[in-house]
Amino acid sequence: MHISQLQTPALIVDGAALEANLATMAAALPGPRLRPHVKAHKCTALARRQVAHGAGRFTLATVREVEGMAAAGMGEDLMLANEVADASRLGRVVETGARVTLAVDSEATIEAAAAGGVREVVIDINVGLPRCGAPPDQAGRLADLARARGLEVRGVMGYEGHVVGVEDRSARVAQIGPCMELLLSAHAQTGGELISAGGTGTYDINTWANEIQAGSYALMDTAYAKLELPFVQALHVLARVISVNDQWAVADCGLKSLGMDHGNPTVVGGSVWFCSDEHTTFSPDSKLKVGDRVKVIPAHVDPTVAYHEAMHIVDGEEVVETWPVDLRGW
Amino acid sequence: MHISQLQTPALIVDGAALEANLATMAAALPGPRLRPHVKAHKCTALARRQVAHGAGRFTLATVREVEGMAAAGMGEDLMLANEVADASRLGRVVETGARVTLAVDSEATIEAAAAGGVREVVIDINVGLPRCGAPPDQAGRLADLARARGLEVRGVMGYEGHVVGVEDRSARVAQIGPCMELLLSAHAQTGGELISAGGTGTYDINTWANEIQAGSYALMDTAYAKLELPFVQALHVLARVISVNDQWAVADCGLKSLGMDHGNPTVVGGSVWFCSDEHTTFSPDSKLKVGDRVKVIPAHVDPTVAYHEAMHIVDGEEVVETWPVDLRGW
Repeated sequence: MHISQLQTPALIVDGAALEANLATMAAALPGPRLRPHVKAHKCTALARRQVAHGAGRFTLATVREVEGMAAAGMGEDLMLANEVADASRLGRVVETGARVTLAVDSEATIEAAAAGGVREVVIDINVGLPRCGAPPDQAGRLADLARARGLEVRGVMGYEGHVVGVEDRSARVAQIGPCMELLLSAHAQTGGELISAGGTGTYDINTWANEIQAGSYALMDTAYAKLELPFVQALHVLARVISVNDQWAVADCGLKSLGMDHGNPTVVGGSVWFCSDEHTTFSPDSKLKVGDRVKVIPAHVDPTVAYHEAMHIVDGEEVVETWPVDLRGW
Repeated sequence: MHISQLQTPALIVDGAALEANLATMAAALPGPRLRPHVKAHKCTALARRQVAHGAGRFTLATVREVEGMAAAGMGEDLMLANEVADASRLGRVVETGARVTLAVDSEATIEAAAAGGVREVVIDINVGLPRCGAPPDQAGRLADLARARGLEVRGVMGYEGHVVGVEDRSARVAQIGPCMELLLSAHAQTGGELISAGGTGTYDINTWANEIQAGSYALMDTAYAKLELPFVQALHVLARVISVNDQWAVADCGLKSLGMDHGNPTVVGGSVWFCSDEHTTFSPDSKLKVGDRVKVIPAHVDPTVAYHEAMHIVDGEEVVETWPVDLRGW
């Protein structure tokens, strides 16, 4: 099918760019050194391509992502890198034979894990990002608590989310060391085989962790594109011009098809004025007409993908596959 | 079911507040004076409540919304207040017996309407918002073109989207007149029974239009809440605390469950620091613990609703109904 037959707005993935990104990352972090983060694409078909490139373990952000990956037969080693208040649905996934490891950072989340039927945990450590994670000096106490509740403690995780996006590479390098020293100090208290951390922005400079939770590298977005990483923009939103005059044009994509937390998207061949629910108003560099296709690069990939039911894999202008974004919701 | 049994994040609608909003609007704009905009909720069950309050005609933003409303038996008078480059799916809806009126603003969109099997149109007029719509002085020419292509021209529409959100009421009043004079000048050229315009922010001051396309009034959001309208906040996102320390707490909702184009959400009982994909970090006003429920008011309702599969209608803390958000996608 030619892309002109797609209903717009549509999520388009350049198949060759995706494969190049997966291959580049697999070469840099072979096998278990990479634990790809599913939240970036929410798509079991894309995860299957990551498996084809050597991934066996995955990182996930929601219970539904865990359920979906297990149901799709990729439940070999699923780490929900997030705290949950009720782990009962995860316990049911464990009963199906999938391996589920849950992040815990408090007595309450340890209790939730045990009560919900989860068997394995990592102690989530705050390494500087003000979000989840226990203080490093609490790691040993929490590991002991978890073991006392019958849980296997596989080690630690600690996401340096405040560092992964720092544009200057030398600044990233300088900032990551102290974060990971905190994580190692926690690991010294907990033991376990896993020291899990990192993201696309630190995949090659985080040499402290023994597995990297990168996700954005597969599809990439404009924020990470500024970091001069060896990954290329693989995703865009295809839109169509629905109205045009001498000053501006309007494309049929907007706030409900684009993640907006990082700001406006980029229209290739134009300058964006603003987005409405189902419109993007922009000034085109050259004359456009109604029906013309427009390539729109979202400022943030993850919340963009979460708006779409499917992503279309293209080779040039030919749609070669359509993959459901089947891990949306919670 | 008690709300504590809901998987979080969850979209919660206060049933009494919704009913009050619908009743207030129906009293102000009875029967055909109101053409409620479905894009604000994307939910046929909510549209049914609008029918119960006297609505017969609806405004829509996407082809799928038209299809879904027709399939749900509410196809009496559906206006797609947006241009489309390919109207063939709308033609198929017309064939099922639904009444579909399509906005057109150019020769190309008139041609698309006719070729796609649409039978009725309104001429969309630019009244100041730089988006879709023809210049007012083109209205007569476009109406003639449409009639020559066999289309029934029902009149004009022109959305004063740059005025509806102006916080000061007297400024809104001052700005709307010139916009609507443009629309009336266009209508004088086209004829037809419809002069369709307006939104929640101008529902009572737009006395030029003979039908108002308001949508946000049903659920409301923080932007419109600043306008001192007689509609109350009926929607929030229910989240749970998953991590907490002496300085901040983390709730399990984020960029994938909240429309972010108007900025951060408001956490009732706290101050938001930032949102991540599945987290909101905030400083709570009083001590919280893991598992506590948190009420999060999105800054923009429409793109928030579009992330959710369902909305839960509550009476206090009791979930009385769950409505699928069944008009998502395109």
